[in-house]
Amino acid sequence: MSITSLQSIARWPHHDGSALCVSNAFPELGEKVTVRLRVPRSLGEVDGVWLRSVRDGEPHYDAAAPVGGSDVVPWDWYSAELSVINPVQRYRWAIRLGGRTHWLNAAGFFNRDVRDDHDFRVVALDRTVADPTPDWVHQSAMYQVFPDRFARSEQADLHPTPEWAIACDWDTSEVFGRSPETPYQFFGGDLPGITEKLDHIQGLGATVLYLTPMFPARSNHRYDASDFSGVDPLLGGDSALVELVEAAHARGLRVIGDLTTNHSGDAHEWFRAARASAAAPEAEYYYFDEDHKNYVAWLGVDSLPKFNWNSQKLRERFVLDDDSMVARWLKPPFNFDGWRIDVGNMTGRQGRDDLNHEVAALIRRRLHEVKPDAMLLAESTCDAAADFQGDTWQGAMTYTNFTRPLWHWLAGDHEPAGEPWFFGVPPERAERIDGEDFLATHLDFVSGFPWTVRRCNMNALDTHDTARAAHVMRPGGQAVGVALQYTMPGIPMVFMGDEFGLTGWNGEASRTPMPWNDRSRIGEDLRGLYGELGRVRSQSPALLDGGIRWVHAGSDVLIFVREHADESALVVAARDDFEVTLDAAVVSPASPDEWRLAATVQDRAGQGGVVVEHDDGAVTLRGRGGPDAAVWLLPGVEHP
Amino acid sequence: MSITSLQSIARWPHHDGSALCVSNAFPELGEKVTVRLRVPRSLGEVDGVWLRSVRDGEPHYDAAAPVGGSDVVPWDWYSAELSVINPVQRYRWAIRLGGRTHWLNAAGFFNRDVRDDHDFRVVALDRTVADPTPDWVHQSAMYQVFPDRFARSEQADLHPTPEWAIACDWDTSEVFGRSPETPYQFFGGDLPGITEKLDHIQGLGATVLYLTPMFPARSNHRYDASDFSGVDPLLGGDSALVELVEAAHARGLRVIGDLTTNHSGDAHEWFRAARASAAAPEAEYYYFDEDHKNYVAWLGVDSLPKFNWNSQKLRERFVLDDDSMVARWLKPPFNFDGWRIDVGNMTGRQGRDDLNHEVAALIRRRLHEVKPDAMLLAESTCDAAADFQGDTWQGAMTYTNFTRPLWHWLAGDHEPAGEPWFFGVPPERAERIDGEDFLATHLDFVSGFPWTVRRCNMNALDTHDTARAAHVMRPGGQAVGVALQYTMPGIPMVFMGDEFGLTGWNGEASRTPMPWNDRSRIGEDLRGLYGELGRVRSQSPALLDGGIRWVHAGSDVLIFVREHADESALVVAARDDFEVTLDAAVVSPASPDEWRLAATVQDRAGQGGVVVEHDDGAVTLRGRGGPDAAVWLLPGVEHP
Repeated sequence: MSITSLQSIARWPHHDGSALCVSNAFPELGEKVTVRLRVPRSLGEVDGVWLRSVRDGEPHYDAAAPVGGSDVVPWDWYSAELSVINPVQRYRWAIRLGGRTHWLNAAGFFNRDVRDDHDFRVVALDRTVADPTPDWVHQSAMYQVFPDRFARSEQADLHPTPEWAIACDWDTSEVFGRSPETPYQFFGGDLPGITEKLDHIQGLGATVLYLTPMFPARSNHRYDASDFSGVDPLLGGDSALVELVEAAHARGLRVIGDLTTNHSGDAHEWFRAARASAAAPEAEYYYFDEDHKNYVAWLGVDSLPKFNWNSQKLRERFVLDDDSMVARWLKPPFNFDGWRIDVGNMTGRQGRDDLNHEVAALIRRRLHEVKPDAMLLAESTCDAAADFQGDTWQGAMTYTNFTRPLWHWLAGDHEPAGEPWFFGVPPERAERIDGEDFLATHLDFVSGFPWTVRRCNMNALDTHDTARAAHVMRPGGQAVGVALQYTMPGIPMVFMGDEFGLTGWNGEASRTPMPWNDRSRIGEDLRGLYGELGRVRSQSPALLDGGIRWVHAGSDVLIFVREHADESALVVAARDDFEVTLDAAVVSPASPDEWRLAATVQDRAGQGGVVVEHDDGAVTLRGRGGPDAAVWLLPGVEHP
Repeated sequence: MSITSLQSIARWPHHDGSALCVSNAFPELGEKVTVRLRVPRSLGEVDGVWLRSVRDGEPHYDAAAPVGGSDVVPWDWYSAELSVINPVQRYRWAIRLGGRTHWLNAAGFFNRDVRDDHDFRVVALDRTVADPTPDWVHQSAMYQVFPDRFARSEQADLHPTPEWAIACDWDTSEVFGRSPETPYQFFGGDLPGITEKLDHIQGLGATVLYLTPMFPARSNHRYDASDFSGVDPLLGGDSALVELVEAAHARGLRVIGDLTTNHSGDAHEWFRAARASAAAPEAEYYYFDEDHKNYVAWLGVDSLPKFNWNSQKLRERFVLDDDSMVARWLKPPFNFDGWRIDVGNMTGRQGRDDLNHEVAALIRRRLHEVKPDAMLLAESTCDAAADFQGDTWQGAMTYTNFTRPLWHWLAGDHEPAGEPWFFGVPPERAERIDGEDFLATHLDFVSGFPWTVRRCNMNALDTHDTARAAHVMRPGGQAVGVALQYTMPGIPMVFMGDEFGLTGWNGEASRTPMPWNDRSRIGEDLRGLYGELGRVRSQSPALLDGGIRWVHAGSDVLIFVREHADESALVVAARDDFEVTLDAAVVSPASPDEWRLAATVQDRAGQGGVVVEHDDGAVTLRGRGGPDAAVWLLPGVEHP
């Protein structure tokens, strides 16, 4: 077992982007940042430690100095000054050990030379474009509402069914996952319905309500907006949104919207004008062919014509104008607290055009002007990291680093019904991976993000675009997933209905109306678990702001510590029975009586729970009774 | 042993960018390219193969079809059509095996999800900027001459020692690796001296002569050019260069120069004008502070002031003008065949400025106008791949993918004298790695390059900037390195004097005058080996144009096959005694009597040689007598 393999992860040197390791998360260009490395004594004799950074394209080495350690803790600290020479300042650690240089980067610990892509990185934001992401963003817990399916107020009955729609009954109509009727099934949820249910949302620990589009459209998902300037009357119109946001704000709940920067609907006035005449000013907002007949559309879906961001006029109307789509909803009377950007990964990309970062920075700059403390996350169904390097989106709604490997680790026996569960996977089959591969995949994908972005990435079990966790995961698996989404770095993102264990085999089939009335549709009532984890997280400096140090990845169990000067949190998540014995000091120098159990999955159900035994410097963690997870709070970590 | 580990590499599916696997190496945007995958039957039952590409930022899957295989060969071919949607079209293969999706990308074979950075890629060049790199570039063998140390003609005696210089005697003066005198030691080699030695250069199999700078300067290395518009009179002036290039061309030898795009010398007329007055037009060519006192210089070396590529005027004089630095030397009467760009990795990078790709594309476009079949390689001492994606430099003079891991694999007992051997490594110690780590490191670093760039990367054992291979490597190691540099994809790059086994502990100490007269300074006469390998390579379609498929990486031995429709080449390189038994069909379906030994290291010295034994479908390769290498030529590979 090589010391650089994942099986030895407890002996790896440790660094992350948290305050224990980086003195300033948002430095200015030219500033020096103190960076610290922790080296377990069990690693063996260290012959030297260097900080390697890249300055204007050239590697540079600074010797790191040993700066502390004591007999109490089984590690030594090293420190170096990192000069922030470039906006994305990359760095990694060289540790000389047994005559070989070992490298610690954000993806792992290597005993051979490695590429720069996985380097740690701090970002010096261009302060004319971007403000530091406010802490509330990464400290959020999100709850996602798909308005047509969340709740109907009494007013909803007053609206006639629109001409494009197929009226459905809230509790008895089947939701079709794939059918010509899929986009037109109309259940008629509305915004006042959401306002009535804010107690429910906050009870789950959510601090941000994320609404999928509320613009007028010709589908139930409303991503084919026909107009970005008003709220769909079917949802209650502008006034209903104002009331919803005011009611949410009154109770400390923030609200963000969903904006599609990649395309509009074909019924949008811009596109109608553009299609009508090549001479229309709006014609340049889209990609038409020379004959002005055909146009580029999202994945070839004609109803979703793609924006051409070369158009300065489009930039003005969408982003820059006083009353632009980006700006107007952040201002009174609507007062959105930010945006989730739809199809962020494709925005501005078309053939030889790649304006993606330019468009993202344009929108970030507009936020900086209009509402500098707003949230700005963007969807990316691809390997997202390269698009999230500081001056663009604050965080990614992505599936690669968390959702997908978690699904594979917790996979049950369901096979997808001849279709992928979601984007970016080959068709037809479920994957099954073990805990080591979960961790290897996770580290691979998160390693490309600066820490300040990584902690703003969404941790979702599922969304309105995917199958449901309860469908994909083994029995009891979803609860383990919930524990991980609330405790790993990132923003927990709960799709409405997960708290009731709803199922669904793909994104469309998962858009089930909430089971407010017909309780027989509840699969498993997990509201207590969500609420408990939400509360623990919201009060824990370790879970909100701490670093993450992995101490074990086995086939069936994952163990890590979130660390902060004021508190640590130990998290154990298991998909099956397990028993692990670790050096207690590796987990924490705290004595056994300082361990405080803060949350657990199985005790909640009265079935078992993870057992801890301390014995002569070792700690044994044991789980019986299947999938389980537990969180302990421990003393904080001292650093020099 | 997992099938995805390097130990199982012979069972991995195979794809590379060569003609066997990619139907068109230089497609146009919008074109479809046929890509082929070869799957060894020993891998087990395959449940499906998909080609994953990324289109405008979104993952896309195409099912690959089985298209052939026979009882003769132990593999099956799959094929898919890759649509070239974006200029750098990335793709990788998904292979469903045992219920899990496995991924083949340019870095290896994985049984978990992987990031996109290591995807294969084809490039659709912007034909207004860049022509396809001509074949002669990747088919080259280069010989590097540092003019002050290569050869003195009789005329050299006529030149007085310049005022900045310390006159040294060719055969008796010690070359100082680190001393205040280092840049001023003047041995007085000149261009007519090179012209006299063209027989020697061609005898080693070189097809390109690469000259380090020949501009007037105030150092022996001349990277501090005081003028880019003429040849240093100490070297013989313009006419000597014209004569050298004409003589070389007359015998089919090309000549490239060395241009520094990152900085000039402080004696350069542009900088003298710039420093004299903030109002001078040249002031904007450099980075001065507000007081016009201090300026940015290469690694803080005052004599090398850094160019500011924001200056349009600089772009004109350096690149765009008829008589620009880039253009004039490519035209008559000088007729250079291309450029090696110095400090390519730092060019255009300064703090928040990153104009690197813009400057590289500007220079590539100028080549396209002036001499479209010219060579354009650029130095990069960092992880180079991100800067070499098609429309910029054709290939990299880099150390990360070949030189450095090779040094570590072949390392001898020398320790560096308190200094790094070269750029980009932590100070003070030699590394020692085994063959698996050589291969892992190599694959990691080459995986970021499009194939058409990768095959234009320099394979050097050393350069004028590094210690010598003979110093770094174990006894007999250099010859093994030479075998690899001539047989792996890339351009073999020989630093003058390596053929005589010269030594040197760092770049400066390695600039030893050639031992033409005092033969006692010859460490080991390797001219025969260089010449033999150069000849074999120049006549082998497999070595010039073939793909590369690794079949074995052991601690002490590396084995791969270069494959082409007309011929294959099997290469075995060992740092010590070894014995490996492989499935003969994995190496080649050819019968034993079709193997033709083309080159070997130890037979040349009469000490041993690699032994091959075929027995009942197995082939055993065995080496006795220390470091050794051998090349066999085999029949070509059929593809559907």
